[in-house]
Amino acid sequence: MCKRALQYPQVETPPPQPFLQSLKNTLNEILFADDPFRKIRNESKMSKKIELGLRHVFPILEWARGYNLDYLKSDVISGITIASLAIPQGISYAQLANLPPILGLYSSFVPPMVYAIMGSSRDLAVGTVAVASLLTAAMLGKEVSAVENPKLYLHLAFTATFFAGLMQTCLGLLRLGFLVEILSHAAIIGFMAGAATVVCLQQLKGLLGLSHFTHSTDVVSVLRSIFSQSHMWRWESGLLGCCFLFFLLTTKYISKKRPKLFWISAMAPLVSVIFGSLFVYFLHTQFHGIQIIGELKKGINPPSITHLVFTSPYVTLALKTGIITGILALAEGIAVGRSFAMYKNYNIDGNKEMIAFGMMNIFGSFSSCYLTTGPFSRSAVNYNAGCKTAVSNVVMAVAVAVTLLFLTPLFFYTPLVVLSSIIIAAMLGSAVRSTALMLGLVDYEAAMHLWRLDKFDFFVCLSAFLGVVFGTIEIGLILSVGISVLRLLLFVGRPKIYVMGNIQNTEIYRNIEQYPQATTISGLIILHIDGPIYFANSSYLRDRIGRWIDEEEEKLRKSEENSLQYIILDLSAVGNIDTSGISMLEEVNKILGRRDLKLVIANPGAELMKKLSKSKFTETIGKDWIHLTVAEAVSACDHMLHTAKPDSPEKISRVPEFNNV
Amino acid sequence: MCKRALQYPQVETPPPQPFLQSLKNTLNEILFADDPFRKIRNESKMSKKIELGLRHVFPILEWARGYNLDYLKSDVISGITIASLAIPQGISYAQLANLPPILGLYSSFVPPMVYAIMGSSRDLAVGTVAVASLLTAAMLGKEVSAVENPKLYLHLAFTATFFAGLMQTCLGLLRLGFLVEILSHAAIIGFMAGAATVVCLQQLKGLLGLSHFTHSTDVVSVLRSIFSQSHMWRWESGLLGCCFLFFLLTTKYISKKRPKLFWISAMAPLVSVIFGSLFVYFLHTQFHGIQIIGELKKGINPPSITHLVFTSPYVTLALKTGIITGILALAEGIAVGRSFAMYKNYNIDGNKEMIAFGMMNIFGSFSSCYLTTGPFSRSAVNYNAGCKTAVSNVVMAVAVAVTLLFLTPLFFYTPLVVLSSIIIAAMLGSAVRSTALMLGLVDYEAAMHLWRLDKFDFFVCLSAFLGVVFGTIEIGLILSVGISVLRLLLFVGRPKIYVMGNIQNTEIYRNIEQYPQATTISGLIILHIDGPIYFANSSYLRDRIGRWIDEEEEKLRKSEENSLQYIILDLSAVGNIDTSGISMLEEVNKILGRRDLKLVIANPGAELMKKLSKSKFTETIGKDWIHLTVAEAVSACDHMLHTAKPDSPEKISRVPEFNNV
Repeated sequence: MCKRALQYPQVETPPPQPFLQSLKNTLNEILFADDPFRKIRNESKMSKKIELGLRHVFPILEWARGYNLDYLKSDVISGITIASLAIPQGISYAQLANLPPILGLYSSFVPPMVYAIMGSSRDLAVGTVAVASLLTAAMLGKEVSAVENPKLYLHLAFTATFFAGLMQTCLGLLRLGFLVEILSHAAIIGFMAGAATVVCLQQLKGLLGLSHFTHSTDVVSVLRSIFSQSHMWRWESGLLGCCFLFFLLTTKYISKKRPKLFWISAMAPLVSVIFGSLFVYFLHTQFHGIQIIGELKKGINPPSITHLVFTSPYVTLALKTGIITGILALAEGIAVGRSFAMYKNYNIDGNKEMIAFGMMNIFGSFSSCYLTTGPFSRSAVNYNAGCKTAVSNVVMAVAVAVTLLFLTPLFFYTPLVVLSSIIIAAMLGSAVRSTALMLGLVDYEAAMHLWRLDKFDFFVCLSAFLGVVFGTIEIGLILSVGISVLRLLLFVGRPKIYVMGNIQNTEIYRNIEQYPQATTISGLIILHIDGPIYFANSSYLRDRIGRWIDEEEEKLRKSEENSLQYIILDLSAVGNIDTSGISMLEEVNKILGRRDLKLVIANPGAELMKKLSKSKFTETIGKDWIHLTVAEAVSACDHMLHTAKPDSPEKISRVPEFNNV
Repeated sequence: MCKRALQYPQVETPPPQPFLQSLKNTLNEILFADDPFRKIRNESKMSKKIELGLRHVFPILEWARGYNLDYLKSDVISGITIASLAIPQGISYAQLANLPPILGLYSSFVPPMVYAIMGSSRDLAVGTVAVASLLTAAMLGKEVSAVENPKLYLHLAFTATFFAGLMQTCLGLLRLGFLVEILSHAAIIGFMAGAATVVCLQQLKGLLGLSHFTHSTDVVSVLRSIFSQSHMWRWESGLLGCCFLFFLLTTKYISKKRPKLFWISAMAPLVSVIFGSLFVYFLHTQFHGIQIIGELKKGINPPSITHLVFTSPYVTLALKTGIITGILALAEGIAVGRSFAMYKNYNIDGNKEMIAFGMMNIFGSFSSCYLTTGPFSRSAVNYNAGCKTAVSNVVMAVAVAVTLLFLTPLFFYTPLVVLSSIIIAAMLGSAVRSTALMLGLVDYEAAMHLWRLDKFDFFVCLSAFLGVVFGTIEIGLILSVGISVLRLLLFVGRPKIYVMGNIQNTEIYRNIEQYPQATTISGLIILHIDGPIYFANSSYLRDRIGRWIDEEEEKLRKSEENSLQYIILDLSAVGNIDTSGISMLEEVNKILGRRDLKLVIANPGAELMKKLSKSKFTETIGKDWIHLTVAEAVSACDHMLHTAKPDSPEKISRVPEFNNV
């Protein structure tokens, strides 16, 4: 014990904080982890504070000052490039959502403008996405038919977009962005792969020129629906589709091999649309089973604010659809924004991005747009085309507006099958792409990577995939969130607890499984708990500690060594404890006491010491038995073992076992 | 660096385990943490193995061999004592569940017998409980009226009991007992206090002699229902009730002051019933507004296996009711069994107990019983009366059977108001008692204790209480589970991350907030991450690490000290990592590299090293930069700082900030 007084200070209990102060710190840590207002707070002048605040809310004020002609040139090029992708993709995805095709164009006009003002990413290209479109169709379609009641369906889609935007804004304002993190990357990978499969399967309808089709999205229903109608298949449609698909995939392949030729794959959809339309126009093949888009109304977005439905039976449907699709859209948009920000080494504030997404969807829902976010494919094209700022989104919006004002008649003859090919081409490899995005990898067998690294992540990924493909999109989503959360709970519920041994010639103690050369010390056992002590694991830990001691005593009895006298608990990795955890420690102390064993604590952290001293546990076991390091605890025990001889081993007797197997 | 080679071994990666082996280990740890089959496995002879197996399933085989006359004497005394409590309580709780009073007696006959054979607690007294009874009434009553359709209601109660038993058995067999742990102690305390309040409020109906009453359980509806009927209040009933309540509470007080006189409060309910019945019989007061039980059928439990309802509209209702009440009953029964086992120093296997509870409810549902568990009050009386084994349950069952066969007519004149008094007396202080039970404390202001120790637990407790009292019992339950889980998720989502400093004259590094005397080292910053690195916290950790570095650099810039060159991450408390976490580390490494900072890792655990080396992260940052201790990492960095001078500080420049506020 004398050694201790010389060498080590006592384990300290941090000074108590007033409750409100500690609540404020905790909330700050949860909600304002990145301390976004640091600059504003440090500024003393009020006018400067306001200016910084405005810049914080509208990033355009930040970057517009440094904008120059070089940037503009780059942004115009990339803006026109993404517009050429946005127009055919927008029309296709609107079809996927069972909405009028023109909505895809509307949605590429207003939202990008809003994002350019409020968004903080320089590379994100705003637009609609396939999965959210399909999910909108699946969720709304369950209760309102898009064919029988198109007006109500359309209005509900606007309302769902409004709710999605509202939710996104609220999440951002309340700084609850971390809720999106509940979707683990593995879950997103599986979900996206499943969604891509489902979206592709849906395109078989267009590709085979079928007019009736199942409303379910699972692979079994879709295949059954297709093969039961094999007599209705239109070979003309299928052939045309395959040709375009081949063309699109070839351009993709070329662009992938030579990244400089990115514009080939970016332009391919528009080229397909033009050629497809010309083909139909000149050959009059619409009578041969090739369906066409038909008339698109000229003119930019009509207002739709009066169409929002807030009346009873449908408002909950719109709310549910809005929340689920909104979260999905957020998860994709923020992941995309973050990865490009990482490439170019700037920061993105997730909460600010949420507000930007939310505002763009709210304004979108007022102007005949449906759900938009930052899709990966379009943003990647934007990035490759050399965009510098969000001005590229403005350029795209202007290009789309010009199309809306003057060019819509040109789409009259566009065959639907071309749109299907565009969607399939966009989806094939989307799984790989989204995976690469999530893992920060390129060209890697993602699922195998997960399998090798972390089996549980692979399992999450697989269940999300199977849930989407064989169940519904919602089932896939719920499964992946559920399993991800379960994993966190399992971590907390079953913390690792292992025996430590001394690494020879040092004062270091480590896991004897990881360091087989580490040696244990006779007469004591050192247990390391690798996680917080909470209600969810306190009875497990109690049982497990008991079992370690039983096993150790059995071993000692066989080898006739010194009997066990001290149990050292290394709490350095125990981040927190709750009241159940404290009761557990008290219980363990009592049980050990009855078995004539002494509990010794090593290195409890700040939070732990606070609670242990408040609960008087420190007094119960004695302050002298709480040590700063394991080494110190061992030396104190060793000292006692060799001088005091506390109790003779004969006294170590247990109450006779009676009804305990 | 030379110092290292001499003194410390390398950080080791544990040998890879085949996938199936590691899966087996993990599942073992989750499901068989207490290794229940150790003894059986260690036995070599087959016949012995079977014998041990049978004893494992039927603990009666274990303790029956050592049973003797002394034990029997104690068990008979305690058995009769608890029977005298069980009979009036059983009738009262059956009333609470809107079931025929006789069911309360039936339920004290068959289930205790089953438990005596299969249960492993020596102190648990089996019987019905107030909260589960009320919950049954609330849940079934929502769809089937006990007044209009008493037969269906009764059959649904049996079916719910069957499902509860089935679920309990399955949980036990699948060793999923840990799922019950999702109910934190704080949540149970709040929930029980709320339920006690609600149960007492319900008794006002009986106490005031009202015949119409609300079906809701929340305090607002109940009080409104009572005060809207103030003209119907019966003063005779109220007066009688208050007298008995006073008597019961006085006996309780006496028993509490002098634990040896426990039998006074144990006998009081029966005494009340007898006096109440005599009073009504001789004064013929049933016409003055005092309701009586009326006729009870003679004879022991009739079979009810054919009454179970498995047909469509009602089976889901019964299933839902069974699962929720079954989980509640399990939570109470297991907590009670565990605490008494702790007093007497024997072990209880939660999963085996679940099977015992499950079997007793399944057999109960076949013989006209409803949901039973191990109520605290009755078990405490059993314990105080000196019970030795589960034989006391058998004695109680026999006493109840005798009552059923011969004494039921005696209950004809028992006034309902006496039953209400019994319930209120049992409930008052039940919150305090259940709290004491959960916290292992006696006589302590539980909520204040929670508040002092752990504000979050207090919040959980309060929400469960308010949920039950102002909402419904289910809302209280969902709230408390939800908030408890949220707490776990918050722990994982926002792990503490703090700066470490050197404690002078040692090689120890600790949190500088906890140990203000610890000093930081110029040129480097040591960050300690206090929790696992998972998808739920990886972006938080990335941001937070970035912020620590920014703040440190700003500080250094002001004080014009050495610029930052090394970031040491102490990973000793990081129990696990998933693929998102690894990507995060890779990202941090990249970002630091761009800022000309070097990432150094200290003390990664076994699980971490496995994944880091599989993902090639160890190669990315270089094996030489992974150290066994923080001290070693610091000395290596120090060495580099003073000899190599890696990069001049001028080079530490960042990409100009552009659109990042």
